[in-house]
Amino acid sequence: MNQNYPLLNTITSPRDVKKLSFEDLDRLAQEIRQFMIQTISQTGGHLASNLGVVELTIALHRVFDLPQDQIVWDVGHQCYTHKILTGRKNQFTTIRQEGGISGFPRPQESVYDAFIGGHSSISISAAEGLAQAKKMQGDDHFVIAVIGDGALTGGEAYEALNNAARANAKLIVILNDNRMSISKNVGGVSKYLTLIRSRPGYLKLKHGVEITLDHTPLVGAKIKKGLIQSKSALKQVIYHSTLFEDFGLVYTGPVDGHNIKALCTMLERAKHMDSPVLIHAETVKGKGYLFAEEAPTQFHGIAQFDVDTGSTSKGTNHNFSSEFGQAIVQMAQKDKKICAVTAAMTEGCGLTQFASTFPKRLFDVGIAEQHALTFSAAMAANGMRPVFAVYSTFLQRAYDQIIHDAAIDNRHIVLAIDRAGIVGDDGETHQGVFDTAFLSAIPNTKMYSPCLFDELPMALNKAMYTDTGVVAVRYPRGGQPNLPQKLQTATTSYAYTGKTGKILLITYGRLFGEAVKASTLLGENGLQADLLRLVQIHPLLDDCVNIALQYDTIVFAEEGVARGGIGEHFLYELYSKGFRGQFALRAIPDAFVAQGTYKNVLKRLGLDALSIAQAATGDATWKKLD
Amino acid sequence: MNQNYPLLNTITSPRDVKKLSFEDLDRLAQEIRQFMIQTISQTGGHLASNLGVVELTIALHRVFDLPQDQIVWDVGHQCYTHKILTGRKNQFTTIRQEGGISGFPRPQESVYDAFIGGHSSISISAAEGLAQAKKMQGDDHFVIAVIGDGALTGGEAYEALNNAARANAKLIVILNDNRMSISKNVGGVSKYLTLIRSRPGYLKLKHGVEITLDHTPLVGAKIKKGLIQSKSALKQVIYHSTLFEDFGLVYTGPVDGHNIKALCTMLERAKHMDSPVLIHAETVKGKGYLFAEEAPTQFHGIAQFDVDTGSTSKGTNHNFSSEFGQAIVQMAQKDKKICAVTAAMTEGCGLTQFASTFPKRLFDVGIAEQHALTFSAAMAANGMRPVFAVYSTFLQRAYDQIIHDAAIDNRHIVLAIDRAGIVGDDGETHQGVFDTAFLSAIPNTKMYSPCLFDELPMALNKAMYTDTGVVAVRYPRGGQPNLPQKLQTATTSYAYTGKTGKILLITYGRLFGEAVKASTLLGENGLQADLLRLVQIHPLLDDCVNIALQYDTIVFAEEGVARGGIGEHFLYELYSKGFRGQFALRAIPDAFVAQGTYKNVLKRLGLDALSIAQAATGDATWKKLD
Repeated sequence: MNQNYPLLNTITSPRDVKKLSFEDLDRLAQEIRQFMIQTISQTGGHLASNLGVVELTIALHRVFDLPQDQIVWDVGHQCYTHKILTGRKNQFTTIRQEGGISGFPRPQESVYDAFIGGHSSISISAAEGLAQAKKMQGDDHFVIAVIGDGALTGGEAYEALNNAARANAKLIVILNDNRMSISKNVGGVSKYLTLIRSRPGYLKLKHGVEITLDHTPLVGAKIKKGLIQSKSALKQVIYHSTLFEDFGLVYTGPVDGHNIKALCTMLERAKHMDSPVLIHAETVKGKGYLFAEEAPTQFHGIAQFDVDTGSTSKGTNHNFSSEFGQAIVQMAQKDKKICAVTAAMTEGCGLTQFASTFPKRLFDVGIAEQHALTFSAAMAANGMRPVFAVYSTFLQRAYDQIIHDAAIDNRHIVLAIDRAGIVGDDGETHQGVFDTAFLSAIPNTKMYSPCLFDELPMALNKAMYTDTGVVAVRYPRGGQPNLPQKLQTATTSYAYTGKTGKILLITYGRLFGEAVKASTLLGENGLQADLLRLVQIHPLLDDCVNIALQYDTIVFAEEGVARGGIGEHFLYELYSKGFRGQFALRAIPDAFVAQGTYKNVLKRLGLDALSIAQAATGDATWKKLD
Repeated sequence: MNQNYPLLNTITSPRDVKKLSFEDLDRLAQEIRQFMIQTISQTGGHLASNLGVVELTIALHRVFDLPQDQIVWDVGHQCYTHKILTGRKNQFTTIRQEGGISGFPRPQESVYDAFIGGHSSISISAAEGLAQAKKMQGDDHFVIAVIGDGALTGGEAYEALNNAARANAKLIVILNDNRMSISKNVGGVSKYLTLIRSRPGYLKLKHGVEITLDHTPLVGAKIKKGLIQSKSALKQVIYHSTLFEDFGLVYTGPVDGHNIKALCTMLERAKHMDSPVLIHAETVKGKGYLFAEEAPTQFHGIAQFDVDTGSTSKGTNHNFSSEFGQAIVQMAQKDKKICAVTAAMTEGCGLTQFASTFPKRLFDVGIAEQHALTFSAAMAANGMRPVFAVYSTFLQRAYDQIIHDAAIDNRHIVLAIDRAGIVGDDGETHQGVFDTAFLSAIPNTKMYSPCLFDELPMALNKAMYTDTGVVAVRYPRGGQPNLPQKLQTATTSYAYTGKTGKILLITYGRLFGEAVKASTLLGENGLQADLLRLVQIHPLLDDCVNIALQYDTIVFAEEGVARGGIGEHFLYELYSKGFRGQFALRAIPDAFVAQGTYKNVLKRLGLDALSIAQAATGDATWKKLD
């Protein structure tokens, strides 16, 4: 810390927040804002959402006593101010780095992080569980869920709202309404929030009308007939006039989410109500940093940027997302039946161009992966060709729908699975390492894992026009590995270097880059290792199994979970066909994968070239000679 | 068909429904009701929900033109009248039988079944997809989602509602409000529906007030101040006064769901509105059969029953559900931290006694598996000991929450997974065959699969007090297999008969009964086959792998998917330890499993004793001598 942050320097725990005057708190907010902008400009991270909740976070820490009171952040990447105020200020520069603090709430990291929050729309459920447990143990502290209006497009939030009133626990829901998911928010509820936001009189009116009715014994005859006879019914109309009240919560707001004093007043009032309360706070995503306010989507999750100019270092490099975006636009130009579905990830999944070219064929359904899947399957049932573009980790939300709504009736949908494999900075909650296991266990599914850019449109094309059922094309964050020219022949089945030795390295996707290096490493030491690269990874191709049968030693390496993954299936097929040689599986072991650079994570997991080479020699200490 | 059903006899397609007068339609409804009661009393099936929608289904077929117009039923087990009216009257006695028609909508069965419907809360999503596809192809027919108020407790319904208005397609949602899930419906929305149902004036009032305001230029001074100045704001209050309107749909109702004429009028009106409409229909579950009206939960999904007395043949036999219910009550009596969570399955999961003994520790959250999981994980985070009792097939809904909310932070929750394995009559949509694969791929999980009743409380106890993280105890529908006395020793790890030969049969859970018979069969023919029964099926115990290493031939049999299942994991462990013998995996192959009796399904899948014995001999034609 330094002299730019005189007030922030004095904050070592949430208690220190309580000592400051409202004037000082406003200044503290500005210091935190500057501190975050400076730090994130160096480290990268989620900026816009965090700039939007500085005052809200300060107000919460002023009114409530953490960690006895608990806050659940939804989505969790808005927790930076919370981390700064709860003893992690000095570690803040390590955010999202290997060994550093997480960019999401992480209970293992701090007692102030009550619950995880990497995936959306869980906060009310979690808060109810935390609050219910407190209640049953005679602890009368509060649990607060802070949920964005974007997260309110996810179904679990409503499952929880439906249960909120019954809980009768010390539960406060804060709707952080910034009119955005990662991109502009969508749907009926979003419109509805606009309505109640845009009419300050709308809610005050309820009170006014009620008082008026109570104090009006005699009114004009027409009114008398229309209103007074139904006074109690009208009261119902009036009282139950917000969505949240329909679910049984007390609604209060909207309140300016950047006015600490007003927030504190409202929070204090909420503490004294009998039943669960929803506070509607209006915030501005990117607040206080003009570039982020103007382009919150660009400043959602960003790499390094220049504070003065707002220019981000995010290159315009090719990556698989952009390759997908380009390919699907080209396909859609020739085929009117192609539609794209996204769960609030138009930009992240590379669909920006599709959205502008075919606005009526792009369905951004909000953070609603379940709906996205069923909706896609139903579009397919009536003859369209939907592709659902989704991050691997978020597709987990639609697991049941893949089985039930798509696979059982063999609905032909294409899943464009982005961020498959190791994701780097986001850590445990965002690794795309389960899709290989969960999809391959489902009948009527097929999976491709391109390694080369050129393979992505080829696989998409095959998925769309040759295959049936649920067809997934999975590709990683970032680009293709650097490969020797001779290994750059694109295919949708497999690529094999031919039989020259007794060792075979099998892999798929981006990890092929490491396999090639491992082969070189082994070759330099007189061990000839051939390469088999799968593109169709499920179902396994007989040709691939037959190739592998010719070898004494096989190393199967994959960027996915070992248990239930492609390697295990491969071993089973091999074994059934009589293979009895050495088989080493290098995959993600039975543990969650923490944040770090791709390179470091590979090393940690034993998936880097040296580890693969060691697996081939059967010697974990083997190293390149010289 | 017979003389009892003069009108029904004339119906061969939905077109015939259109020819009848309303009086005849009412008589048709009574005939259908009698026909269903008679048939289901013989075959078993979902009775109460189907009796509730006879008139609604007739009205839909009268007003709409199927299959050009499409209906999505949610949950699908209310489709019996629909099946009877759409050419499946004569097959109706085969419902839920092997080779017969399904108890759920099944597009492969009939062009009139637009979409699948075995799992809850998907109908609005599906209808939107179907309708959107129609719209894009210039087809202006309607799609109607019929959703129960129970299904409205599931989050995906709200994801879809949030997208409904934007679709601007020919979409009609019918809320079939019978105040029930399988058991009594729960939550804020349920209360809300009661409110708008119980006040017929409540909604008419909206219109009345609006007209009154428009025609009242002069009113008393007090009113003037309170109301008229805010006339437009009040209109907003008034117009947006139902939950569904907040989501952007046009609300109409409530309408008596047993009045065909009234229903038809409302449906006709809905056809002429510009935007998606929600029709609120009130129905009575079990309507027309007194025993079912009085005890709709008992008559939800039933076995055979006596029509005259209403007495069901459902025995009071022990089964795993009741064993679980008894065990968890006993545990909860000693431990105040134990809570039970269920997603609208209190009865089905054996929690009736728990519910009455510990009403404050039983959380029925509605058909909301996602919420149930997160809620449980959060209760655990604050020191409680939650057990989430759930059918295997429905746990699929909470897959992401298991990973993200529970496993990453190693939250200690117990999953009591009922209906694990083959379920019989319900068929494809309800088989509990994926949990072994999807749970075992997740770090920080453990799984037990009791075969004996006594093992269930033992496993629960270990899960609750010895283990950490996500611990699942999975057990089948029904009871324990008949076993010789010497094989009835209960354990939570494994049971092994000792080494006497070169063949080892490995299995777990109920399927052990078949393995024992297979061993006998082989023994009678001079082939000594030993038995290894796993109770802890994940992670695999070293002891079990070491035992297996001693054998030349291993057959691993399981009632779960082959790919990613326990057998594949076992082979990998064996192989890594040097096993090179014969290994045959008998599990569920890469296809969905259709309805049938347990015994027949086992045969079909090659999981019966003979098939297991054949696998051990390596001869698929091998049969018992003599």
